[in-house]
Formats: sequence, structure tokens, C-alpha cells
Amino acid sequence: MKVAIVGVGLIGGSMALKLKEKGLAKFVYGVDFNENHLQQAKTLGIIDEISTLENAVENSDLVILAIPVDATRKLLPTVLDLVNENKTVMDVGSTKFGIVNAVKNHPNRKRFVAFHPMWGTENSGPQAAKIDSFSERAGVICDKENSAEEALKLVEKVAENLEMNLLYMDAESHDIHTAYISHISHITSYALANTVLEKEREEDTIFQLASSGFSSTVRLAKSHPEMWVPIFKQNKENVLDVLNEHITQLRKFKSALEKDNYEYLEELIRNANKIRGILR
Amino acid sequence: MKVAIVGVGLIGGSMALKLKEKGLAKFVYGVDFNENHLQQAKTLGIIDEISTLENAVENSDLVILAIPVDATRKLLPTVLDLVNENKTVMDVGSTKFGIVNAVKNHPNRKRFVAFHPMWGTENSGPQAAKIDSFSERAGVICDKENSAEEALKLVEKVAENLEMNLLYMDAESHDIHTAYISHISHITSYALANTVLEKEREEDTIFQLASSGFSSTVRLAKSHPEMWVPIFKQNKENVLDVLNEHITQLRKFKSALEKDNYEYLEELIRNANKIRGILR
Repeated sequence: MKVAIVGVGLIGGSMALKLKEKGLAKFVYGVDFNENHLQQAKTLGIIDEISTLENAVENSDLVILAIPVDATRKLLPTVLDLVNENKTVMDVGSTKFGIVNAVKNHPNRKRFVAFHPMWGTENSGPQAAKIDSFSERAGVICDKENSAEEALKLVEKVAENLEMNLLYMDAESHDIHTAYISHISHITSYALANTVLEKEREEDTIFQLASSGFSSTVRLAKSHPEMWVPIFKQNKENVLDVLNEHITQLRKFKSALEKDNYEYLEELIRNANKIRGILR
Repeated sequence: MKVAIVGVGLIGGSMALKLKEKGLAKFVYGVDFNENHLQQAKTLGIIDEISTLENAVENSDLVILAIPVDATRKLLPTVLDLVNENKTVMDVGSTKFGIVNAVKNHPNRKRFVAFHPMWGTENSGPQAAKIDSFSERAGVICDKENSAEEALKLVEKVAENLEMNLLYMDAESHDIHTAYISHISHITSYALANTVLEKEREEDTIFQLASSGFSSTVRLAKSHPEMWVPIFKQNKENVLDVLNEHITQLRKFKSALEKDNYEYLEELIRNANKIRGILR
């Protein structure tokens, strides 16, 4: 089939590479407002042809929106205006409720499948794309009952070709879970970077001392605001809930230390250690 | 030379393996209150002989204390009582001020070199030991002017054989820097794990959805309280300073979201992105 990738960055690019390798995508149109990214994607073999949105949608069986969630929310109704019942549209956004809500009354809603591949890095752009990025990761399909059966089947086939583990949930639950599992990690990482940058004035010392522990907790702080501001905005209520709980949890550590209550500190740590039983 | 490893866990075990491979340690005595760890260390070839502290110190040229920082603080004066001017003692603790302070008036203070290898994992025990753990990591020597020249030279040789990048600073500065670079990362990670465990009741969902971002920020939350409670205790004032700043930084994200001030949110994220220029 022919595929239109709208947004030839880290996610769109990685998907295109894998779907081409698997033979599921025979021809890939690339759409992006960033000319450099389009040229790079062409050079890297991610896309076969640089195209306008209209031309790409008209000539493709599958349209993948791989752009920030606010852009998806805006563009999705336009893309659905352009499709017929032989075409399928999917997104890859990290929030889902705002997106499905934006098209809930659209006459072509059934051609859309809301998808979230649970993978990303702190890098962006087509040069960051990697062919095996999605293997063994979770792929979430939301509100599947609102998609046409063949559209759903096609997206399941895409996820299968990306070698992802498929999960199904409603968009609202998805946004609650991802607030915990993904969005809060980014906020703590940003805040940690700002803490260090605020107080530790000796940049050389940061650079020389930075242990692997620090690097791994602060890695996500390199992620770009173009992607993350829209995610926090669209998932504001859930993220605030989690953030409030997180500040409460940090205050417990503060209180244990201030009161020299090391039994309580140990209890807090032992509780946190339970994550060992849940996370690989 | 002959080496006594007091505490045959992750750090002591990894050091012993590397120093033996390099030929710097010809014979290694293992001292530990944990009988299982001693047996495992013997089986794994980390140590050559299980020993008492007294016997190990008497027969070794170098004594490496690789136990939690509170235990080091208590045991170090006893070990210095046992040494003569041909022996060197070093520690590997993550805090330094309390330890150097505990022996500042000891007649054998000059035989001790305060050392901190900036490496660790969330795992512990001799089975977690890895031979190349320290390569290219920072190794910090504190208050070198309080150590005898040959003792200092020997520890520098050990660091060289571990392939570490040596740095020198005073113990007080060390504890301030590590509060930022290492200790706060552990607190945020513990608090993040507790946040998720408190509110996300669907453990299966955590397991299935956990992205690499979440796993990397929460990895440190698997670290044991036996090691970390003493570190937080001995570095209490610095850790509280950083923790207060971190809570302040998180509140800025909360405020930006609550007030729908997305320009400010973007500014906070762009500032955090500066860590990209400092961290590898």
C-alpha cells in the first residue's frame, strides 16, 4: 500500500523505515512544513516523494499523522474531510481525549484510528529515526468501537509490523495512565535539570561528576517544548493531579529529613522499592 | 600487593575484579558480616580468602572500605588503629564530610585517602559486581593534603587501574556537588515511584505501558535503603537545600499549568533543555 507520513520526524520517520522494510509500505509520501526535514527524510530513504498534504492523502491508502498533539487536533478534521471509505487515518499522539473529541461528530470519524506507540527519545527530526524503535513496546489503540472494522484491522496490522504489543483502552483512561507513566517523568526531569542549573553554577563540575544515575533521570529534560507543551496542555487536569501527588510525596522525604526521622525515610524508600516487582 | 575488601558488594566486588585482572591486587581478603555474600564472592573469584577484619588488615597493603557511609564512619577509626605507616586505607563512600571528620584527629589520619568512585547501579551484592564498571567514570579524591604522599599515590594508582578520571576537591564541596548530581536524583526517583504506586492502582497497566522514559527516571527507585538512608542522613543539610529548590522548580510547572501560562511553561522547558549542552 501507499502511505502518507505527515511529520517526517523521529516517530513518523522510524515508522516509515520499519513499514518499508517489512514491505507493508510500498511507497511513502512525506509531508512536513520543515523543508530541511523533508530533504533529510528523502536522503535517508525514509520517504520516496516530497508531497503536499492534499496530494499525499489523495494517493495514499493510509495517512499517519506524526506531529505534535495540538497540530494533530487541528489538522485531523481537515484530513478526514479529504478521505473516502477506502482510506485510513491514524495518529501517534501522546494524548488522546482532545484528539478523538475534535472529530467525534465528523462524518468520516470511522476512518480514523487513535493510536499511541509508547516509545520516544529525547531527540527529534528524521536523523533521529531508528528502524527498530518500536519492537516489543506497547502500542495503544483508543476507542476502537468508533473506528470502522477495516480501518482498525489495518492499524492493527501496522502495529504488528512494527512488532508492538497491542493494548486497547478508552481515550480518557489512556490520558490518565500516560500522565503517570510518561508525562510526570518528563516534568520531574525538567524540574531536576532546572534545579541543577539554578544552583550548581560550576558547569564543569556537573559535566565531570555526572554519574549514570543523574544522566538517566535527567535525560528526558533534553526533550523539546514543541512536542511537550501541547501534551501538558491537552492533558492538563491529569498531569496536575499527578504533579500534586508527586509534590506531596517529595514533601514526605523533606519532612523525614527535617525531623531526623530515618525510620520514616527508610519506610518511604522501601515502599518505592516495590516498583522493582512491577517494572522490568 | 595484597588487598582487603571490607564489604564484598557491588562496589567492593567490582573493584576487586578489576584490580585482580590488572594484576595490581595479587591476593584479596574478603571481609563482610553477610556470610552469603562472602561465599558468593569466593565462588565468583572476587576474593581469594574469607577473613576477619583484623587478619585482613594485618596481612594487606591496602584496605578498601566498601560499606554504607554510616558504617564507614564508625569502622574507619578502628581500622586506622590497626594500620602502620606501610598500609593505606581508602573508602568509596558517596558522602565525605562526615567520614573525614570522624578521623580528623586520628594519629594515623595520613594513612587514609577519602575516595568516591562516581558509579553505581540500583542493584547490590557481589553478584551485581561487574569488572568494567568504573571505566571512564569520575573518581573523586577529597582533602588530599591530609593524606600521606605514598598513600595518595597508591590510591591514584588504584583509580588509574580502574580507568577512572581523577578529580580532587575538598570534602565539603564534594558533598554539595553530589547532593545535586546524585542524591537528589534518587529522591526524585523514589518519590516518582511512590506517586505512581499511590495513585495508579492498575499494576498491569504500569507494567504494560511503562515506556523507556519512565523506566529510566524510575530506575534509581530500586536502590536499597541500607545504602541510601545513611547517605541522606550524612548529607542532610545539602540534600534539604536541593530538595527545597527542586520542589520550588516543580511548583513553577504547576503554576504554569494552573494558570494556562504556556509561554512560561515553554520557557521552563527551554531552560531545562540547556542541560543538553552540559551533559553528554
